[in-house]
Amino acid sequence: MNTVDLIRKKREHNTLSEQEINFLVTDYTKGKIPDYQFSAFLMAGYLNGFNAKETASLTKSMLYSGRVINLDMIKGKKIDKHSTGGVGDKTSLILAPIAAAAGVIVPMISGRGLGHTGGTLDKLEAIPGFTTNIGLPKYISVLQKCGAVLAGQTKEIAPADKLIYSLRDVTATVESIPLITASIMSKKLAEGIDGLVLDVKTGSGAFMKKYDDALALADSLTRTAKAFKKKVIAFITDMNQPLGNYIGNWLEVYESIKILQGDTPGNLGDLSFHLSGAMIFLGGKSSSIQEGVEISKQMVSSGKAFDKFLEIVKLQGGNTELIKHPDKYTKSKIRETIFAESSGYLESTDNFQIGMASLELGAGRMTMADKIDPKAGIIFYPKIGDKIKKGEIIAEILTDKKEKVDKVKIQLKRAINLSNKKTPVPKLIKSSMSL
Amino acid sequence: MNTVDLIRKKREHNTLSEQEINFLVTDYTKGKIPDYQFSAFLMAGYLNGFNAKETASLTKSMLYSGRVINLDMIKGKKIDKHSTGGVGDKTSLILAPIAAAAGVIVPMISGRGLGHTGGTLDKLEAIPGFTTNIGLPKYISVLQKCGAVLAGQTKEIAPADKLIYSLRDVTATVESIPLITASIMSKKLAEGIDGLVLDVKTGSGAFMKKYDDALALADSLTRTAKAFKKKVIAFITDMNQPLGNYIGNWLEVYESIKILQGDTPGNLGDLSFHLSGAMIFLGGKSSSIQEGVEISKQMVSSGKAFDKFLEIVKLQGGNTELIKHPDKYTKSKIRETIFAESSGYLESTDNFQIGMASLELGAGRMTMADKIDPKAGIIFYPKIGDKIKKGEIIAEILTDKKEKVDKVKIQLKRAINLSNKKTPVPKLIKSSMSL
Repeated sequence: MNTVDLIRKKREHNTLSEQEINFLVTDYTKGKIPDYQFSAFLMAGYLNGFNAKETASLTKSMLYSGRVINLDMIKGKKIDKHSTGGVGDKTSLILAPIAAAAGVIVPMISGRGLGHTGGTLDKLEAIPGFTTNIGLPKYISVLQKCGAVLAGQTKEIAPADKLIYSLRDVTATVESIPLITASIMSKKLAEGIDGLVLDVKTGSGAFMKKYDDALALADSLTRTAKAFKKKVIAFITDMNQPLGNYIGNWLEVYESIKILQGDTPGNLGDLSFHLSGAMIFLGGKSSSIQEGVEISKQMVSSGKAFDKFLEIVKLQGGNTELIKHPDKYTKSKIRETIFAESSGYLESTDNFQIGMASLELGAGRMTMADKIDPKAGIIFYPKIGDKIKKGEIIAEILTDKKEKVDKVKIQLKRAINLSNKKTPVPKLIKSSMSL
Repeated sequence: MNTVDLIRKKREHNTLSEQEINFLVTDYTKGKIPDYQFSAFLMAGYLNGFNAKETASLTKSMLYSGRVINLDMIKGKKIDKHSTGGVGDKTSLILAPIAAAAGVIVPMISGRGLGHTGGTLDKLEAIPGFTTNIGLPKYISVLQKCGAVLAGQTKEIAPADKLIYSLRDVTATVESIPLITASIMSKKLAEGIDGLVLDVKTGSGAFMKKYDDALALADSLTRTAKAFKKKVIAFITDMNQPLGNYIGNWLEVYESIKILQGDTPGNLGDLSFHLSGAMIFLGGKSSSIQEGVEISKQMVSSGKAFDKFLEIVKLQGGNTELIKHPDKYTKSKIRETIFAESSGYLESTDNFQIGMASLELGAGRMTMADKIDPKAGIIFYPKIGDKIKKGEIIAEILTDKKEKVDKVKIQLKRAINLSNKKTPVPKLIKSSMSL
């Protein structure tokens, strides 16, 4: 096979065979195909597309570029969740203990935050002592002991994805549904799962701003999971405002603790129960998603979910005292309150800007080399449709960076749009699909 | 300016400004933009296109990546010709002396053959002693002395083109009309010309097989020349059969000598006079192309064109004795005749295969490192529409490579399609355009 011929084939809108895609991905990963040829291939694929079969082939060759974990020694269905990311999305921290408490095995490999969205690993590492960088033996032993593990991607998992993602990032080929699908699914399938719940976000704080794009991504992910004979349920959910009220790494651990302790009003609790309900259903521990939701609520009200969280934190080296007494956590030097400058109904938020504001305060990184301040972030109170009175507290900002405060205050005030009329509340779960 | 943003802009079908294109080309040439980003940009441009203004911007930045020769010290209009290449296309060797004999200044920088087509430099270097690799002072002095110079591209001329062409070659981004236009025009404009005659070939032996593609390329080249305020005439000409009867480097010098000495039947003579007529017209030495054609014929019949060719050869170090007595040239070890196996009218030729057969015999190179045998090649007798009798000589092959003879014989026999009915003769000059 000849690389130039294969690039030309995709350039001319033809379909590549599994062998052809495997040749490209494997030889690129081995360094036999140079970056400049692979980037031309990526751009041709970006513009001309890949069909479902090609997407599965891309996923397969990226998956088998590394190790596929075998979890057969652990009894029970292994179910994970993947979210496409958003502002205040800490559901992984809530779902994993709920589903594990209900008897589902949850092998979860997560990523770090980049840009306006947070990452599960950064949130977990806000817990002093918590280690996400664990080798395979420890990964398996934690999973065996408590039925859930929350770890980072090792070098052995889908190395092709890491290489290809880095190249996409610098060649304007990121926002391609087939390439996003292969990137997500190659990592998730390497975990050794039986089924996957997908949370594809749409709205101002999501990567897929438009509902139709989110739908197309959900469809592509679902088909690809099915091509690998995995059970799958995808939800398309709202990201037009933060999930919950807390944005920032420790702040999100804190809010997760509150949910796990039964303080579950609002969109975060609703979504968490829905997703864990789907995991419990896929894991064979309920006969429907709705029954799974009920079981999830029982796991919280009985205290089993919170205990499971403590168990996971302990097994991964984290300080459980701070989980039990989160108010003992180190405080930010600055805690500044933002008041509403006028009255009205909250019509919409610029959720991307809220995420970026949190990053400015130290909660995120612009480049992978940046260091995160785990304490920093935003508590954002109102939800779309709420009535706000002039002078009411709308947000609090927590940071050690004095120089950022004024900028972030302006940024947050601009991220709020008020209306004179009562505005509709966006539907949290817009649709779901399963194959 | 940010490279990823500019790639994305082209990816999203937007138009890039002159400054943006100049940033990309200039920084790529300086090595500040890596190959993998430029190749993604090339593929985005290949698939989404560049408009006329962008094509002119690409040309401009590639042109000014190197030296633009100033020929103001030489009086008279400087006119060159560019052909997109074909099988047996040796018109440059004929036109330059004719136009120079008529008083036009012809600064001609040519390329080497690659693939199935020959290159002017390889043909000239078949003349013992002839040097095409001359520096700028010699280039100007030859032009001053005899009104024409036939040289190769120096490192100073459009270095961006050389880099970009190499990258296009390995990333399946060659066959793009805007990119081809910028590549051709950046080199031609660097010669210091006032006007340009373009010979855009179409048919089985051309790069543009389809007439519409040739028309689009001619249009793009013409518009770009006009954007630089150059006079331009483009012809779209037939390449469904070899031009003349001789294919191979010395064989083409030999046929050029015959034409310059007045033996001018067939498509080669017709096309040569037409192109030189256009050059004479653009050079202000005639009031119409037709008058330029008449002057061209006079230059040949008076012997002035042949004398001019001898003068050029002498000034560039070539052996003029062999030009005067071409039969003294070293002979190939093998000269084998191919006979027609049946009777009929020649309906079509696979001209690409005729070019490839000549290359097999040693007349061309598969890679730039291959060495050429200047003696090798094919004499191909019939023209489309001719009546052929079984047993008649259709071709002769000349080579030192005994092992290639059988393969080439089969190749040439397959490249001929006979018909029982008299078939139409393809029109030599299909159309012309000027702005």
